Amino acid sequence: MVQDRTGKPIECKAAVAWEANKPLEVCKVTVDPPGPGEVRVKIEATALCHTDKYTLSGEDPEGKFPCILGHEAAGIVESVGEGVKSVAPGDHVVPCYQAFCGECRMCTSKKTNLCSKIRKYTGSGVMASDEKSRFSCNGKTIWHFMGTSTFSEYTVVHEVSVAKIDKSAPLDKACLLGCGVSTGLGAVLNTAKCEEGCTAAVFGLGTVGLACVDGLRLAGAKRIIGVDLDNNKFERAKDWGCTDTINPKDFGDRPIQEVIVEMTNEDGVGGVDYSFECIGNVGVMRSALECCHKGWGECVVLGVAGSGQEISTRPFQLVTGRVWRGSAFGGYRSRIDVPKLVERYMNKEIRVDEYVTDVMGLDDINKAFKAMTDGLCLRCVVLMP
Amino acid sequence: MVQDRTGKPIECKAAVAWEANKPLEVCKVTVDPPGPGEVRVKIEATALCHTDKYTLSGEDPEGKFPCILGHEAAGIVESVGEGVKSVAPGDHVVPCYQAFCGECRMCTSKKTNLCSKIRKYTGSGVMASDEKSRFSCNGKTIWHFMGTSTFSEYTVVHEVSVAKIDKSAPLDKACLLGCGVSTGLGAVLNTAKCEEGCTAAVFGLGTVGLACVDGLRLAGAKRIIGVDLDNNKFERAKDWGCTDTINPKDFGDRPIQEVIVEMTNEDGVGGVDYSFECIGNVGVMRSALECCHKGWGECVVLGVAGSGQEISTRPFQLVTGRVWRGSAFGGYRSRIDVPKLVERYMNKEIRVDEYVTDVMGLDDINKAFKAMTDGLCLRCVVLMP
Repeated sequence: MVQDRTGKPIECKAAVAWEANKPLEVCKVTVDPPGPGEVRVKIEATALCHTDKYTLSGEDPEGKFPCILGHEAAGIVESVGEGVKSVAPGDHVVPCYQAFCGECRMCTSKKTNLCSKIRKYTGSGVMASDEKSRFSCNGKTIWHFMGTSTFSEYTVVHEVSVAKIDKSAPLDKACLLGCGVSTGLGAVLNTAKCEEGCTAAVFGLGTVGLACVDGLRLAGAKRIIGVDLDNNKFERAKDWGCTDTINPKDFGDRPIQEVIVEMTNEDGVGGVDYSFECIGNVGVMRSALECCHKGWGECVVLGVAGSGQEISTRPFQLVTGRVWRGSAFGGYRSRIDVPKLVERYMNKEIRVDEYVTDVMGLDDINKAFKAMTDGLCLRCVVLMP
Repeated sequence: MVQDRTGKPIECKAAVAWEANKPLEVCKVTVDPPGPGEVRVKIEATALCHTDKYTLSGEDPEGKFPCILGHEAAGIVESVGEGVKSVAPGDHVVPCYQAFCGECRMCTSKKTNLCSKIRKYTGSGVMASDEKSRFSCNGKTIWHFMGTSTFSEYTVVHEVSVAKIDKSAPLDKACLLGCGVSTGLGAVLNTAKCEEGCTAAVFGLGTVGLACVDGLRLAGAKRIIGVDLDNNKFERAKDWGCTDTINPKDFGDRPIQEVIVEMTNEDGVGGVDYSFECIGNVGVMRSALECCHKGWGECVVLGVAGSGQEISTRPFQLVTGRVWRGSAFGGYRSRIDVPKLVERYMNKEIRVDEYVTDVMGLDDINKAFKAMTDGLCLRCVVLMP
């Protein structure tokens, strides 16, 4: 039940990250009413993603403590601030860490989904209207995270970051379209624009990697090579659509890019048309580039590397026609495209349910963090009280 | 006068690179008749390019001595081997280091100009039909270079590497379309596909860089920032079309990419739509990527780096929408496109004459190598006896 406390603060439970590298603490927090252009949302379900873990580890240079983490969720609008027109109380929504204002130069360019309108505020844990936080705990300010902070019963987000979705979609599944699944699908369909009959390699067979595989299946790829260090992931990857699965450990010191070029050498040259790095490992990013076909192979980097880490290769790789690019949130313009993804999910065109391997309550959120790194966990969904 | 010695060896003068890092020696060499699918060409004019110098230095891992260097030339067909149909004696031609067979998977893909048909032979200094050289000097084999070896009065090239051009084009100018000018123009027009109103940065204002500037002028770029360490090159760069010229030395330790992002920051983000690296310096390749606009900026690497050198950056640069790619011979399909470039030159649409800053005879070829590295030299054209 969503309480309407329009204009008043709400007391509710949230998992607070008081400092880096410490377990979260489920506390009672105060969530202020939404300011102008803001929306207060009752979170129904939130999944965990490796980015939450990354920031919690203290490695993220933008990490600011104490904060409320979480950015892959779905919920119901409780109240809206002044001037908000695109959503109303009772609407079902996915809060999106990547905004879409439709007005800034990034949005109007139509070349990118990286709306810049509120980036500097979401990057520093505050709301745009007054550069303040809406969260506190016993008078102490708690910072926002990625403009979403979904590890809370209630959160406040910018209107430009809220995607209104079909009310018939189950929120405990639709939440996954707020990050991982969309990121993988879009990297294939929007960023690389893979075409029918192409060949591809996907590095890392977690949620993002499997969503790439699902996107490749949709695109009609004829060969999808899944790469992972854990053989236990291969059966599932084949179910998703991988035609081949390989484990670099089986090839000793031999660079895995060489193995892939050889596997795909039907023309005396070899290499895949597209590759996707879904891990965040800079060494793998190199392999992903170098396993691409000379002349046209494109490598898309999706993974987030550790702070300060660098990718490298010989420039000859580029001069001979390989392309190195990246993708954030799958190139999807969040507010416009997430509702369409929910529709595709409801039409059973894309997989979503299948990524949910664990379900827990908010009180078990630290267990959920642990579960995330277990071999076969894909997404652990936390159901809110 | 082109002598017809069909089926017989020809004795002529050539500049032989006997060993790495030594001056060339102008000697009498024997040029065997063309084998099947080969063409013997009387070279009329050949320019020098930095790649000749690079191989002569001994740094090129494919360099094989003794050899006859040279790959930017124009001449007249003297005789043709068995089965050759696309050219006949008397035709004016540009020998191309990048072949175009029209039949291999690279050619038929239409995604790349990097024909792979004879690559392994041209890379090892021999002809494809018998894996032998057509050059000798007093019985000693002299290897081919890049499938062209144009520092010789006569050379033998593969039919798939010969572009037939308009007979009215001056050969001492058209030769430049065999490498540098085409490389720069095509990187802009084919690889990056720059559009009207775009902004760009060009690193290195030699022939390739200026040809990029000329391509950007043709594409209708609104801002072209030329970057070079030598202020003496700026007046000419402005004449070619640069709207701004900057010297990294004027900014102390400040990374030049920061300067360019600031110069182009009209939207709170900053960065150019396209950048071109025309030097072969891996540090500059990084600057060229990082000066690109978030969300869509594309960096095209044209320069050839020293053997073993690597490029690097933070993967965040890619994930936030920048693209790192390369271009070889400007993406032009040599046999098809060089004749069209000659046409554009004859129609005065593109600059060619303006790159010729020095003209010498074959006996002065070592002076020509020296001239190439002089600040304001663009192309030194060697006229054959």
